Amino acid sequence: MKSPGKAVLLLSGGMDSTVLLASMHCDGWQVHALTAAYGQRHDVELLAARDQAKIWECASHEVVSLDVSLFRSALTDPTADVPKDRTSIEGVPATYVPARNLVLLSMAAARAESLSCGHVFIAVNAVDTSGYPDCRKPFIEAFGRACREGTQAGIEVHAPLVEMSKADIVRLGTKLGVDFSATHSCYDPDAGGGACGRCDACVLRRRGFAGAGIVDPTRYTEGVK
Amino acid sequence: MKSPGKAVLLLSGGMDSTVLLASMHCDGWQVHALTAAYGQRHDVELLAARDQAKIWECASHEVVSLDVSLFRSALTDPTADVPKDRTSIEGVPATYVPARNLVLLSMAAARAESLSCGHVFIAVNAVDTSGYPDCRKPFIEAFGRACREGTQAGIEVHAPLVEMSKADIVRLGTKLGVDFSATHSCYDPDAGGGACGRCDACVLRRRGFAGAGIVDPTRYTEGVK
Repeated sequence: MKSPGKAVLLLSGGMDSTVLLASMHCDGWQVHALTAAYGQRHDVELLAARDQAKIWECASHEVVSLDVSLFRSALTDPTADVPKDRTSIEGVPATYVPARNLVLLSMAAARAESLSCGHVFIAVNAVDTSGYPDCRKPFIEAFGRACREGTQAGIEVHAPLVEMSKADIVRLGTKLGVDFSATHSCYDPDAGGGACGRCDACVLRRRGFAGAGIVDPTRYTEGVK
Repeated sequence: MKSPGKAVLLLSGGMDSTVLLASMHCDGWQVHALTAAYGQRHDVELLAARDQAKIWECASHEVVSLDVSLFRSALTDPTADVPKDRTSIEGVPATYVPARNLVLLSMAAARAESLSCGHVFIAVNAVDTSGYPDCRKPFIEAFGRACREGTQAGIEVHAPLVEMSKADIVRLGTKLGVDFSATHSCYDPDAGGGACGRCDACVLRRRGFAGAGIVDPTRYTEGVK
């Protein structure tokens, strides 16, 4: 990883971006967190982001609103069903938000340029993923090049978790002292913020803890197959 | 240019995007126009976009709001001065909006993916420009690659005006029947929407008409040096 300085981090409040935040904090980065409100069905994610930004002493934390009336996804449409109990976490599911990471990274680059800050971090992970095209290394590399070409400062894009498994991420977070009970992954939480345990995000999270041999502190509200 | 189909066009209501719209219309594209409201000082630009979308029979026209509290620019800050009478239109001026085209193209890609549409068009122009890094061909090519990698449909990005001079654009628009009096370029219009004649956008526009030997129908409100 680069020598520390100012950086913008896309912080969702999920386990991956929280572990990355903890890691950047420990490496001495001055982290400006950016969280996007793009009509997620779950505000609990935004609250988790706010709490983690405080815990890991971010230099700033901004929540940017995105007009998502133009995007179609089960994640932003309250009338659509979130897929549950998929036997194989492969193939792009209905929760795919069109070009989401493209839009989020662009907002982060704009924020970085406004702060005269040359680095943007995103916690995408291509190993244990639902198959979203914008979580893979070729996308990150291509976007990084667009960012260097299209900004005055030649902003660099970093995705240090991209080749880690969820189990690796759980292990790293545990080592750094991340409180995973205060992170949120579920695509379809209940009114109290409890995780369903059965959507892709919950299934991948559970697999990560199981793989790492670490107890998952998440409160799941439904029986898990 | 590619054989026609569905395409998303970033339409600002300025002369470049209007000429591109006219050209796409004449080539048989089904155009879905997208206009971003990112806190421009001039709503007259949004009204011009709306009018041109009607004139050139767009299949849809959406105005997307961007939260620009995070971006700093003389173009979106009502307290900042717009530079006037620059002797040389070189060097990035205060009107530069951080990572603007990166953000706009990402929104257009998201819109295209939602519409199951494989093409995005932007009317950037690298010849007669204020030196913005996100108007140049290397940026467009790098972004195009990120877009192909990061979207399910492998969306392609087109910038057919990128190597044309403003004079070429004026000539093309005139040939296609564009009503330039109903397009808007000025960064600092008066309350009635009149163009100042002295900001970079006005200077480049005036040069384009002069170079093409065509009368500029724009109503300028200030004496021009």
